[in-house]
Amino acid sequence: MPRIVVDVMPKPEILDPQGKAIAGALPRIGLTGFAGVRQGKRFELTVDGDVTPEVLEQARHAATTLLSNPVIEDVTRVEVIEEDEQ
Amino acid sequence: MPRIVVDVMPKPEILDPQGKAIAGALPRIGLTGFAGVRQGKRFELTVDGDVTPEVLEQARHAATTLLSNPVIEDVTRVEVIEEDEQ
Repeated sequence: MPRIVVDVMPKPEILDPQGKAIAGALPRIGLTGFAGVRQGKRFELTVDGDVTPEVLEQARHAATTLLSNPVIEDVTRVEVIEEDEQ
Repeated sequence: MPRIVVDVMPKPEILDPQGKAIAGALPRIGLTGFAGVRQGKRFELTVDGDVTPEVLEQARHAATTLLSNPVIEDVTRVEVIEEDEQ
């Protein structure tokens, strides 16, 4: 069945404590090539049937109302992915 | 500065209670086009300098050791993204 991916990231101006914690841990395990980390969420919605424009609109609606908090997060992607694609 | 995206998703055989909760909530707000939802994580690592093969290898190492739990999660993507790309 086709899937729609929704990516949600903290807004750039919002502090991201999880990302900060990871950025602080990287050098402790010897990984020094990075200047910062942000942690967001990734959702895969499995579509029941074909991906119609209506279903895509439903996914966009879900992204902004249920899957993200628009005060602190941005929806950065709502996209159909192929079966073998990530 | 260039960024590397790491996507981490729960393994298919692992129960995903957050995804299940979202899948249950969708029809309650009138969104009936979906058969299931899985929730994972998305990380953006900002690279300090250029993306060398060494830095990419560091990102892969971080993905499997720090950013995911290999018992219950799969790293589904480690990829450089362009400045305007998500």
